[in-house]
Order: sequence, then structure tokens, then C-alpha cells
Amino acid sequence: MWSLVPFADRLADAVERKRSQLVVGIDPVAEQLPPGVSELEFCLGIVDAVAESAIAVKPQAAFFEALGPSGWAAYAEVCDYAREVSLLVIADAKRGDIGSTARAYATAFLEPRGDRQPLADALTVNPYLGRDSLDHGAGLFCLVKTSNPGSGDVQDVELAAGGPLWQHVARLVDEWGNDLVGECGLSSVGAVVGATYPREVAEARALLPRAPVLLPGVGAQGGQPADLAPAFAPGPAAGLVAASRSVIYAYRDGGGDWREAARAEAERLARESWSVAEVS
Amino acid sequence: MWSLVPFADRLADAVERKRSQLVVGIDPVAEQLPPGVSELEFCLGIVDAVAESAIAVKPQAAFFEALGPSGWAAYAEVCDYAREVSLLVIADAKRGDIGSTARAYATAFLEPRGDRQPLADALTVNPYLGRDSLDHGAGLFCLVKTSNPGSGDVQDVELAAGGPLWQHVARLVDEWGNDLVGECGLSSVGAVVGATYPREVAEARALLPRAPVLLPGVGAQGGQPADLAPAFAPGPAAGLVAASRSVIYAYRDGGGDWREAARAEAERLARESWSVAEVS
Repeated sequence: MWSLVPFADRLADAVERKRSQLVVGIDPVAEQLPPGVSELEFCLGIVDAVAESAIAVKPQAAFFEALGPSGWAAYAEVCDYAREVSLLVIADAKRGDIGSTARAYATAFLEPRGDRQPLADALTVNPYLGRDSLDHGAGLFCLVKTSNPGSGDVQDVELAAGGPLWQHVARLVDEWGNDLVGECGLSSVGAVVGATYPREVAEARALLPRAPVLLPGVGAQGGQPADLAPAFAPGPAAGLVAASRSVIYAYRDGGGDWREAARAEAERLARESWSVAEVS
Repeated sequence: MWSLVPFADRLADAVERKRSQLVVGIDPVAEQLPPGVSELEFCLGIVDAVAESAIAVKPQAAFFEALGPSGWAAYAEVCDYAREVSLLVIADAKRGDIGSTARAYATAFLEPRGDRQPLADALTVNPYLGRDSLDHGAGLFCLVKTSNPGSGDVQDVELAAGGPLWQHVARLVDEWGNDLVGECGLSSVGAVVGATYPREVAEARALLPRAPVLLPGVGAQGGQPADLAPAFAPGPAAGLVAASRSVIYAYRDGGGDWREAARAEAERLARESWSVAEVS
């Protein structure tokens, strides 16, 4: 029923086929929605709007959890619909826990649900608990250097062996992904590196030659595709440009129909990123 | 409608009143349940069984998420029922994300739901994303040194300034909790330190003089109350003994009715812990 092709190869295939590295984050926030449009209707509309130009959506679990028990059902519906229109789904949940609990996360997000497909193709995970917290085989994107201003509190701490902590985590991610390299040459264990830190993007690429790098923070947080060239060096699928608010709430800046505004901004950003990747 | 007393003071009050530091983790796993008992029925039965001897329950979100959309409704029902029988609720979800998303987690777990109480009194959080990932005011327990074998991969890395990373995180937690010290002298920002690492428990206490320390890993993972004396030094509410499988699945070792077995094991462990704390 569901794909047995490794996540890395499905990813590379989607990128080549669509000539796009765009991942659209779905963060429904009540105050930002168009008047009279429900969270679920909005999310499904966004999936439709970006289905041609993006390769994946990245629904952020926290915003759905904040809706209460109905939010979790909405989350499943958005994931299922995205997969129906041939988008990959990266569940942005930043999970990480000890062995037995990590298996429960895998069950929730990455394993078939009875005779239905898994909720998602890949999951974002937090490395703080170490390797036994990442005990499953689908796509994973491990936090390495995050896009937020406070990311330095822990990630930039200088190690006795030299370099900041996030570089140590990058080396662990490379090691964890060793056995999961697909035919495309990329691993199914990827990394999250904030597009707001271009120098770190280049350094991370050097430490992670086979990891797909998910680059959040483009758009509303200030990241620019032009600064991300090193991420694409191993191939176009090696750098995934992730934008959320600047795409899904594009109508708030530019006006017009919210679906058309999201579609136009997604197309623009996908083209801009592809043109950077092509010359990398 | 809900308590405005700081979490730290509600915690200290519960500990003094019940003469217990016991926190019971609720991890429903289908294969471990008594035959014919549903996950929800089991969890509610466990809440009843431990209501007298524990001060809090700690439902692990992952196990409920693994049940699919109905799991989230069950999670809310278990939390609500625990608060009805005067237990504190520590949502074990190990969340941590950037600013706007951290607010969504706070909405999901720690803020009133319409005219209903918040889901939980406190939430476990992951420090990897730094301070802006911990932007809310209820009770928090920040992961410092976790109980699992792989916790050393990241947490034990040696820093240029000396000592392992987890000690740096402990100092950050102390700083983050500075402004949130209650009348009882403890902060509402606590720490998670695995009971499986007694030496680290003592070292963490020295770095975190005002933090309630949640000590998971007692029982099935091998931690012993007798090794945890330093955690209780600032007062009985300063060390919270957390056991999950050894309490809730006690019937699997000792036989008999599952509720009675859980009740007996919770009472035994609460008494054992209190006797250690009394002489600390």
C-alpha cells in the first residue's frame, strides 16, 4: 500500500521531477486566517495552492495541538490530502525521547495506520537525548542549528575538542545516516539548519556530505535562497528551502485571493531557489 | 476558574500534604494492558489507584499520539480526570520549538481551554533550541540529563569551559528559573535528571539549588530512591520520584488485580522515597 522506496530516493525523485526544492510549512494561526475560513479549510486550500510548485509540505504539529482534540484529526486530514496530491509530508514535530517512547512516536507518525499509509514520510527530531531516541527507519530531519535567535544558548557552546556543539551534532547525524544512503547518494537521515545562518549552512554542508538539509527560516524570518548555495552542492535535492508564513499568509501583504497569493509566492520562491541550485 | 498560585507552590503544598514525592508516569502500551481493558479505561483506573499516594501523574504524550486521532481526546480525558481527583498533571511531551511555535505548545498544554482548566500544570521541555523556545509561565521541567543509555551522545560532551554539556544546561535552567521562585523557595522551572545517574543527580542539585528535580527512571529502568538523597536536600518537594512501568504494570510481576497491584506498588514507592527524603 505504501512506498518501500527509501525516503532519500523519493525525495530526490520529487525534486528532479518538479524542478523544485520548496517545502511549505503549514502553521495555522487563527488570527492570521482569512475571515470566515476555518483552520482545516485553510490548510487544505494551501495544499492545493502549492501542490504544483512544492515537493513537500511540513505541517507544524504544535499549531494543530493548540486546536484541542479536533486538531489532531485535522492534522491527519491535511497529511492524507497532501499525499493524495503527490506531495511528500514532513511532520514538523521535533520529537525526541528515550527508546520505548521513540517507538511510540514512530508509530504515531511514520508507520502504517492499519491498512492506511503512514501519516508522514519524514519527521523532524531533536538530538538532545542521543541516538536511542532516534530509533526508526523512515525519513528523519535532525535539528542541528535552528533558525531562532536563542539557538546559540545551547547549540553554539564551544566544545573542549574545538568548535560549537552543533558541529558535534552534525557529525553524529552524519554517522547516524551512514547506513541509510539511497541510490541517489543522499541519506534518509537529514539535518535542519536555519537559513537565517548562511555561514553555518556552508559549514554544515561540509560536515554532512550526504544529508538532505532542511533550511527553515526563508521569508518571514529573513533567510534568502541566494545565501544557501552551499547547501545544494551535492545535488539539487540536498537543500530543501522551507518557508511558512511568507507563503501561506502571502495575501496579507499582497492582497487578493489567499489561495492565489500563496500559489504565486510558492511558484516565485521555487523558481528563485532552483536558479540558485542550478549554478551551485 | 483555575489556580493562579505558582506551580512551585502548588507542588510544595501537595508534597507536604500527602507526604509523598511520587509522580506516576502513564505510558499505555497495548501489549502490556490487562486483557479486555481499553487504553482509556486502563489510564483512568491507574489515576484512581494512585490518587492517594502520588502527588502527580505524568502522561506521556507519545503513547497517546500512537493511538491516532482518538488518542488526543483520551489524553485530555486522562488529564482532566487526574485534576478532578486532585492530582497535579505534568504533561510529558518534551516539547521545544522556536518562539511562535512555543506559544502554540503553551496554548495546547498550559493555557485555559475556553472556560475549562488547562490540560496540565506543567510540561516537560527540551533545551536544544534555547531560551526563546521556553517562553511561557506555568510549570516547566527542562531536560538536563536524561535516564536513557544514549543520553551521553550529546549531553556528556565535554565543553571548552570545562564540564559536560548537561552542566551548562543546568546553569541555564537555574538562570531561566530565577524570576519564578515561589513562596516555598522553589522555582516553577524545574529540571529532569535521570534517577539512573545518581552521581549526576548530586551534581545537578548543586548547580540547581532552587529547581524541583524530576527523577525518572526509578523501577523498570533501575533507579533506586536510596540513591537520590541529594535531590531532596533543599526540601521534600525538591525531588520528585518518577516511576512508570514498575507501578502501572505491577500486576505483570506480582499478579492479582491490576488496580490493586498498581495501588500497592505506588504506596510502597511513595513510603520508600519519603523515608529517604526525611533524613536528607
